[in-house]
Formats: sequence, C-alpha cells, structure tokens
Amino acid sequence: MAVRLNEISTRAPEDFDKKQAKEKTARMVEELDDLQNLLFAEGKHSVLIIIQGMDGSGKDGVIRNVLGNMNPQGVTVKSYKAPTQEELSHDFLWRIHAAAPGKGMIQVFNRSHYEDILVTRVHKWCDDETAVKRMRAINEFEKLLQEHNNTHILKFYLHVSPEEQHERLSERMKDPAKMWKYNEKDFEEAKLWDIYMKMYEDCFNNCNNPEWTIVPSDQNWYKEYIIASKLHTLLKGLNMQFPGLKK
Amino acid sequence: MAVRLNEISTRAPEDFDKKQAKEKTARMVEELDDLQNLLFAEGKHSVLIIIQGMDGSGKDGVIRNVLGNMNPQGVTVKSYKAPTQEELSHDFLWRIHAAAPGKGMIQVFNRSHYEDILVTRVHKWCDDETAVKRMRAINEFEKLLQEHNNTHILKFYLHVSPEEQHERLSERMKDPAKMWKYNEKDFEEAKLWDIYMKMYEDCFNNCNNPEWTIVPSDQNWYKEYIIASKLHTLLKGLNMQFPGLKK
Repeated sequence: MAVRLNEISTRAPEDFDKKQAKEKTARMVEELDDLQNLLFAEGKHSVLIIIQGMDGSGKDGVIRNVLGNMNPQGVTVKSYKAPTQEELSHDFLWRIHAAAPGKGMIQVFNRSHYEDILVTRVHKWCDDETAVKRMRAINEFEKLLQEHNNTHILKFYLHVSPEEQHERLSERMKDPAKMWKYNEKDFEEAKLWDIYMKMYEDCFNNCNNPEWTIVPSDQNWYKEYIIASKLHTLLKGLNMQFPGLKK
Repeated sequence: MAVRLNEISTRAPEDFDKKQAKEKTARMVEELDDLQNLLFAEGKHSVLIIIQGMDGSGKDGVIRNVLGNMNPQGVTVKSYKAPTQEELSHDFLWRIHAAAPGKGMIQVFNRSHYEDILVTRVHKWCDDETAVKRMRAINEFEKLLQEHNNTHILKFYLHVSPEEQHERLSERMKDPAKMWKYNEKDFEEAKLWDIYMKMYEDCFNNCNNPEWTIVPSDQNWYKEYIIASKLHTLLKGLNMQFPGLKK
C-alpha cells in the first residue's frame, strides 16, 4: 500500500511509557557494544544503516546517542554532502559503493544515495525519467550488497512535523552550541516541504526492499528507542558466535 | 545463438592482407592518440575496455601496442589479480566499481569481474547458483555504468588455440626477456582448457550486453588490428567536439 507521510504520526503513541522506553534504550545501547564486537570478531555479516530525514530531524543525534557507544574500529560513519567534481565524473553510486561495509563492519550513512532522487528531484536537477532509472539502479545495488556480501541494510526515515522542524531550526539561531549548524538556506528548503514529502514517498514506494522504517521523530527519546530496537533485533537475530581458536 | 568457441577460428581469414592490416593498425593507433585527447577535453563520455583471455593469449601485448600510444593521463590500466583480504571482505564488484572510469577517461581492465565467474567456477570456489546471481549482478553493474555515466564498454576475449598457448608458455622458459612471466602453474591451468572454454561460453551467452568481441589471437597483427579497429570506430562514432572557450 502506498505510503502517505501526512497520515503517519510524528510522535510516539499517546500511552507509550517514556520512562520505560528510555531505560530499555539505555540497556539496548549497552548491549549493542557487545553485539558489534561479536559481529566484528565473527566477520561473516556486515551492516549498513542509512539515515535520511529533513534538516533538523535529528540524524546527528541518532549517530551520537544510539550508535556512538560502539567501538569506532568497527563502526564507520560517512556523511554525504553535495558531490565533488571527481564524484560527479562517475555514476551516482560510485561514491556510495566505495563506502559499503566490509564483513564484520557496521557502516552508517548520514544521508545517502537517496539524495540523488530527493534533493535533486525537488530542485529539478534530475527529471522523472532519470529518477526511475536511478531507483532501479538503487534496488539492484542494495540487492548486490545483500546477496553478495551478506550485508544487512536498515533504512530509517526520521519523520518530523514541519512545526517541530521550524522550532529546531530556529533554536540554532539562539543556542551558541548549535549555531554552527545554522544555515539560512535550511529555511528556504523548508518551504519546499510538500514536494520533499512527495519525493520521500516515492522512495518508500519504489525502493522498499529492504524496507524503510519511518521513525516518528518529534521526540528524541522515542526516535532513539525505535532505532536502537531495530538494530538490536537485527544483530540478536544473526545468531553470531565467536569463531574460537584458529587452527 | 549460443557461442561455441571451438567452432570459431583463432586465426585471421586465409586471404586477409597482413601488410595492409598492419599499415591500417599503425594509422589507427596514431589517430587514437588524438581521439583520446578529444575524449578527455570534451569530458562527456567514458570508455571501459575489458580484456580477458587465457594465459599467453597476449593481453599485455594489446595494452602495450594498441593502447600504449595514448596519453597516460587519460588512460589508466588496472590489472586484477587474486583479491586481497580487504577486497574479499566486500562484494565482488566493489574493487571493480572503484576503478570505473570517470568522464573523459579510458579505463583498461587486464582481467576483470569476469574472473569471478571464470577461474572461480573452474576451481569450484563458486557454485552454479552463485554464478547465476553474479551474472545478473554483472549485467546490472554494466548497465549502471552505461546508463548513469555514459560509459562505453568494449569487451574483448583473446581467442587462442591450445597449441599456440602451449608454444607461448614454453617460450617463457627459453627467452630471458620473458622468463619473468613464466609460472609453472600456467601449465596446470592449461590442462583445464575445456572447462575454461565452457565457462567462457557461459559468459558470452549470459553477459552479452554490451556484447563481447571474440578476437582471433593466434597472430598478434590480426588481434591488434581488430582491437584497434573497434576502439577507433567507437571513438569516431561519438562525434566529439572540443568544448571551446569557457565563458
């Protein structure tokens, strides 16, 4: 069924126990450290975590608070910005593939190849026909990683309301510790909200294998709880074992 | 129609004029230098030349004699050997994609991703089911380069007879300038000729878009003529233009 973002809440269910969720998150984050160590030691699986969301949706916070407790030797973060000249001289997946995780590794993408069918479409640098071709290429690329390198892909969309976004962007003008993030242009982009939502919906409807998790993200505690749970469940489910002494 | 290598001659047609062919090759090789310069200057297209063939089929000779006259700033050669530990920790196309040509560039692969469905299958490191998946991934990968980076792919199989191969490998034992290429194991591999041919036929039948050129290669002059012609025709056909003064 086609996703409609404006029908999906950006907040936790009303009766969701915040205190309990926070405790659970803390426990899971602690266990993630051990699970990642096991993933690294076993060296059979790899994990790719794709984080997408509008400005101010809290992508950096997820990386710091949920993924930041694991050993950085086995967890790498790649933030994708506007492509360089060299990157532009290659196909759009070239710089993405280069950072795909090796076995035993967790790779986090702060933004990703999805920007090539998001911001680019919103600004009409990429027409619909090209977008359709890119979606196909993305699906095949994610299939390649899954089938040929045992890569488990988690895709998160941090779903905030435009009101919450506005508040957070405004805060960046006031809080000295957040001013470095302030960018006038973010407010310009925010005006394109509806078209961004439409393009995101297109991603969810056409590139959904593996499937996206739409994370209600107006409250950080709930966002972190959902993402920690997903990663925790994934790693637990791999039934990993230490390989024992090499012979 | 399915390719059968043992029905395809490894030699030039009987009445083919050797002297004329050599003159033509020399002229084309000279023109390739200008055409490559134009490709580089225009920066719209990229070219990927894949060279496959049994040991002693003359891959190095093609690179030296046909491609070696162009400006090395715009032509790079990547020789694929057995994968390193780091390469093995990724999907088989990871190291291949990394070396894909940027716009304006000619990239030569001396051996390639096809080894992942050739030597690997011959030695049963890759089963048929995996091979089928790899073929699909290869087709999608080559499509990605073509559709998303204007990459023109030329695939050459250097077709020699087992007798010619034996002669060339034996020469490596006698000629001081060729001894460095001598490898005892090549003779072991040569015994697997029939199964190699079968696996090559599988490549031609399943990964043929863009299509393979099967190059009769027992005579170097004919091999070089065919390959120079293919590249020359491709570059000529791009109707490239110098971009003129930037404004």
